[in-house]
Amino acid sequence: MRYNILPLDELFRAAVQAKIDNLNKPKGSLGRLEELAMQVCMVQHSLTPSLAHPCHLLLGADHGIEREGVSVSPREVTWQQMINFTHGGGGVNLFCRQHGFHLRIVDVGVDYDLTNVEGIVDRKIARGTRNFLYEAALSEEEMQQCFDTGYTLVDECAEEGCKVICIGEMGIGNTSASSLWMSLLADIPLDDCIGAGAGLNNAGITHKREVLHRALQRVKGDQLSVSEIIRQFGGFEMVTAVGAMLHAAERGMIVLVDGFIMTACALAAVRLCPTVKDYMVFCHCGDESGHKRMLDALGAKPLLNFGLRLGEGTGALCAFPLVDSAVRMVNEMNNFDNAKITKYF
Amino acid sequence: MRYNILPLDELFRAAVQAKIDNLNKPKGSLGRLEELAMQVCMVQHSLTPSLAHPCHLLLGADHGIEREGVSVSPREVTWQQMINFTHGGGGVNLFCRQHGFHLRIVDVGVDYDLTNVEGIVDRKIARGTRNFLYEAALSEEEMQQCFDTGYTLVDECAEEGCKVICIGEMGIGNTSASSLWMSLLADIPLDDCIGAGAGLNNAGITHKREVLHRALQRVKGDQLSVSEIIRQFGGFEMVTAVGAMLHAAERGMIVLVDGFIMTACALAAVRLCPTVKDYMVFCHCGDESGHKRMLDALGAKPLLNFGLRLGEGTGALCAFPLVDSAVRMVNEMNNFDNAKITKYF
Repeated sequence: MRYNILPLDELFRAAVQAKIDNLNKPKGSLGRLEELAMQVCMVQHSLTPSLAHPCHLLLGADHGIEREGVSVSPREVTWQQMINFTHGGGGVNLFCRQHGFHLRIVDVGVDYDLTNVEGIVDRKIARGTRNFLYEAALSEEEMQQCFDTGYTLVDECAEEGCKVICIGEMGIGNTSASSLWMSLLADIPLDDCIGAGAGLNNAGITHKREVLHRALQRVKGDQLSVSEIIRQFGGFEMVTAVGAMLHAAERGMIVLVDGFIMTACALAAVRLCPTVKDYMVFCHCGDESGHKRMLDALGAKPLLNFGLRLGEGTGALCAFPLVDSAVRMVNEMNNFDNAKITKYF
Repeated sequence: MRYNILPLDELFRAAVQAKIDNLNKPKGSLGRLEELAMQVCMVQHSLTPSLAHPCHLLLGADHGIEREGVSVSPREVTWQQMINFTHGGGGVNLFCRQHGFHLRIVDVGVDYDLTNVEGIVDRKIARGTRNFLYEAALSEEEMQQCFDTGYTLVDECAEEGCKVICIGEMGIGNTSASSLWMSLLADIPLDDCIGAGAGLNNAGITHKREVLHRALQRVKGDQLSVSEIIRQFGGFEMVTAVGAMLHAAERGMIVLVDGFIMTACALAAVRLCPTVKDYMVFCHCGDESGHKRMLDALGAKPLLNFGLRLGEGTGALCAFPLVDSAVRMVNEMNNFDNAKITKYF
């Protein structure tokens, strides 16, 4: 598979830097905001960048591995939360409202019939993945369906004029899947990739470690390609997110990357096409053990360290106003000419 | 001087925690947002907190010490920027617009006649402080005027219904004043309190160090009270900010604390009345050398580490949406009862 993601135009960088440096402030004095502004300008190849029509994709699916008791929450929480999101009372809802994100709640594989629930987009691939303790979580065909779904969802956002996209997940068991992706895609010992998820106690974590080690054992010795790693352990929502991230970059969008699970998806996307990383803003380092290490493996410096572990994309949504501040800086701040200030360096 | 700042009601904490824990999310999973929500609820003694009518005070003044060449920028930049702010093109303007802050631009001691400039509130105490290399920067009377001005400004905001206040500064030379406050108020060696300000080079920093050591020498051996330290080295905008912070807490407001200079003011306020700290949200750890150490001395954990060093209150303004997210969480998020979710712990 080839991805049509445009590399940044390095020749354009000097023009952006000149604009930023001539804004009415000591050079570099807006720190991280200046770096963000540079990134958005480079992605959009524009000196007047835009974050028009922000969209949030909330992808829900269930995981076969949940049957092994690797999560503190039972499987039913996935569909219950999906319905709850349609009522507007979830974390994702309130932060979407706060920051003007158009929220799409998408069922890509929840183990429950949600077809009659208003407000949920039905793109169900199956009612949960297979249990990766015993077999590959997805079939080849299901993996392709996930990629296609991610592409279609992004195209729908793009047609509305979306310039910045955020992706969140709801799927009991998906920190387990993410730990395996992280270990295999970043070559980090599995134990360093496993944490408490949404709130396991020590005994729960020990059990989760044991289960995931057995799952890893199943593929031991195999030379797995990136797509094979994705297929063996992925969740439908995770593979869909990988496809969405890649296609969002193809469509020139800024991709806001959330916490542990979405960082695992970003890692998978980067392994499939490294150029996609230029389009990503890593928003949050969460509480999940190993998240910082995965960000380090990506060379990513998150905007926030807020210890969130709710998922749903909430960490990325909370960081959005900072990206917005950076874009406003480029577009609205006076420069030294029109501000009539002594330019002191 | 006694401050009428209500201590938090510790008996109320359990009620807030119960509300937060019954929100529709794994316990503690919104991390830092939950801590912020707790703080705002405790300050307002309310389970339905509000950040109504956010106000930003931009206080401008000049410093006698600027005559010693301790800053990369000339003194004239203070008044030029003050006028620039009235045109809406400064960093402070755009972030105030972004987050709906009512901006008051206040001249408390700029060395320029700004009385005819529309949009600047005239509370000038004098045209700049005295040069603290040779004498106390403020007289006793001027210090009292600054406190009174801070009180009045906060009262004006309170009358409009302000529940959250942010304070920023414009004053060439004020990192020098802040370094001396920090060293004396936190008992930290002066060299560890001095940085590049808005952009000094190494030679400039060396000169600044030498000047500030000489200034410190002038009071060596004196047992200076907190208010005497404030008076000896303060700027009009800094002392006004200290008064404003203390009175904002008296009026029950949340106080957003910006970067190096405003953290020095927060430190001074806390030394005058430790209870004020409960009302403060430390928003940003900036680039200025020593800022992190000063935050540590206050036991403060800033929301952002963005390397800003523009001043004007920009770091605090950029962090405001995070506080807003916390308040929205408490007010808008479903709880386990109305969300119809299995409460799994």
